[in-house]
Amino acid sequence: MLGSIEAGGTKMNCAIGDENGNIIKQAQFQTTSPAENMPQLTNFFIENRVTAIGIGAFGPVSIDRESELYGTILDTPKLAWRFFPFLKTLKDNLNIPIELQSDVNVAALGEAVYGAGTEDKTVLYITIGTGIGGGVVVNKQFLPTAQHPEMGHVWIKRIPKDTAPSNCPFHTDCFEGLASGPAIEKRWNTNAKNLPANHIAWETEANYIAQGVYQMMLAHAPDRIIIGGGVMKQPQLLPKIKQNMKDQLNGYTYYPALANLDETIVLPALGENAGLIGGLVFASQI
Amino acid sequence: MLGSIEAGGTKMNCAIGDENGNIIKQAQFQTTSPAENMPQLTNFFIENRVTAIGIGAFGPVSIDRESELYGTILDTPKLAWRFFPFLKTLKDNLNIPIELQSDVNVAALGEAVYGAGTEDKTVLYITIGTGIGGGVVVNKQFLPTAQHPEMGHVWIKRIPKDTAPSNCPFHTDCFEGLASGPAIEKRWNTNAKNLPANHIAWETEANYIAQGVYQMMLAHAPDRIIIGGGVMKQPQLLPKIKQNMKDQLNGYTYYPALANLDETIVLPALGENAGLIGGLVFASQI
Repeated sequence: MLGSIEAGGTKMNCAIGDENGNIIKQAQFQTTSPAENMPQLTNFFIENRVTAIGIGAFGPVSIDRESELYGTILDTPKLAWRFFPFLKTLKDNLNIPIELQSDVNVAALGEAVYGAGTEDKTVLYITIGTGIGGGVVVNKQFLPTAQHPEMGHVWIKRIPKDTAPSNCPFHTDCFEGLASGPAIEKRWNTNAKNLPANHIAWETEANYIAQGVYQMMLAHAPDRIIIGGGVMKQPQLLPKIKQNMKDQLNGYTYYPALANLDETIVLPALGENAGLIGGLVFASQI
Repeated sequence: MLGSIEAGGTKMNCAIGDENGNIIKQAQFQTTSPAENMPQLTNFFIENRVTAIGIGAFGPVSIDRESELYGTILDTPKLAWRFFPFLKTLKDNLNIPIELQSDVNVAALGEAVYGAGTEDKTVLYITIGTGIGGGVVVNKQFLPTAQHPEMGHVWIKRIPKDTAPSNCPFHTDCFEGLASGPAIEKRWNTNAKNLPANHIAWETEANYIAQGVYQMMLAHAPDRIIIGGGVMKQPQLLPKIKQNMKDQLNGYTYYPALANLDETIVLPALGENAGLIGGLVFASQI
C-alpha cells in the first residue's frame, strides 16, 4: 500500500492507495499549524500502514534533495509554517521512505500518469485558484531542478481599462495578482462564483490566463496543457482561453501542440484528485 | 576525437576537439543552402575523423528522438532549409553516431560544463542577437522534451512611449520583436553598434531583456542565468539588466538565486565558443 499527502494552504488531504493510482481511503484536515496537523497526518499513516509516501506541498518549499532544507516550507506568509521541516518531521515519526515535491508538480504527475496527459511526453499543469502555480512533468518524471517553478508571478499586460488592484504583495501586474480567485473578487467586488457566465469579467480573466499560460508554453514546449483550480470550474472559461491563446499565437505554430490548441489545452481529467493520485504515483517511484 | 557543428542562420561552424572540451581544429562556412553546406560539413569530417558529432542547429528544428522528423529543420523562413533532414543527411554521409539539439540548448550545455555554470544544477542560457532564443540544461543534461523552448516570443510590456515597429512577423510585442538586434535598429534607425553607451536605447533594451529573462526564470528556476549574443557585447547592458530584474522582482526572492542576482546573472564564460564546445560535450554524451 502506498501513501499520499496533499499539503495545501487551506486543507491537508491524505490517502492510501494501490500501485494503480486507486485511492482506497482518505482523510482531510483543516490546515492550521504544524502542532495540530503533523500528529493528524502521522496518526493517519500509523492507522493505515504504507510502504512509502509521496507529498505535494504548498510553497515556497525546498524540493532540492541535495539541500539541508529539502522538504522544509520556506519563507511563507503562513507564519506557523515558516521554515517548518515538514518532510523531516514526518520521516522521523513514520520511519519509511517519504519524498516531497511542490503541490502543482505532484498534480501534474497524477494527470500525466492517470489523467489528461497519459499519452504525452511533456505535461504542463497550471492551477488557477486562491493562488496560481504551475508544474511540469516530462516522461512521467519531475524535472530534476533544485527549485520548483513560480509561474504565478509572470507578467500580464493589463487590458487598458482594467485598473483593479493586484492581489500580489510584490507585483502590480503579475498572473496571480490579476487572475487568481481573490483578484477577480477585488476587481468586481463580489466572489467570482456570483458573476454570471456572460459577465465581461470572464473575458478579462480568459485574456489574463491565456497570457500567463502562453509564457509557460513557450518556456516548456509542452504536449499537453492542463488548467485546473477552483476558478476553472466556470465552464465558459476554457473556450475563451483557447480563443485568446490562438489570437496571441497569431499563426505562430512551430510545433504540433500549438497548431492543435483545442486538443492541447484541457481541464484536469482527475478533477480534485489529481494531487492525491499524483502523490501515489510519486510514492511508487521512490 | 569528437566533432561539433554549430549550424547557425548566417554561419556554419564546425570543429574537432577532445574529451575535455578543447577545440583542436575548426572551420567556418557561410550558411547558404543544403546543396552547398552539407558537402562542406561532410568533407570537414572526412578530413578530420571523429567518433561522434554533437550538433546545435538553428530552429525551428525537431529535437524529438522518437519522431520521424528528428533532426529535420522545420518550417523556417529560410526557404532552402525548410524541412531539410539535416541530421539524416549527415548520418548517411558519415556513418557515425550524431545527435542534434537546438543551438541555444547546446550553448547552454557548453556553458554548464566548461563555462559560467559549472557549479550549477539548472543553467538557463539566453542569446540576444539577430534573434532571441533560450536553452536549459539540468545536471549537465538537456531536458528530455520533444520540443525546444521558444523563449524569444514571450510577451513584453512596452514602455509607454515606445511605438517602434516589432521585428517579429507574428507578434507586435514579443521579446524578439522588441529586443533583438534588428529591433533596436528599427527603433533608432541605426545599427545598435552606433548607439553610444549613454543612449536611452540601452535603458529600453535592458528593461525588455529583463522582462523576457524574468519570465523564463520563473518558468525554470535556474541557479545561473547566462545572457549571450551579439547585443550583449555592449558592456553597459548587463548592470542595467540586473537592476531592472531587481526592480521587477520587488523583493520576491523565494529561492537563493533570486536573492543574489548580481552573481546569478552573468555573461557567457566561453564567449563565442559556447556552441562549439557544447557540441563537443554533446558528442561525448552520445
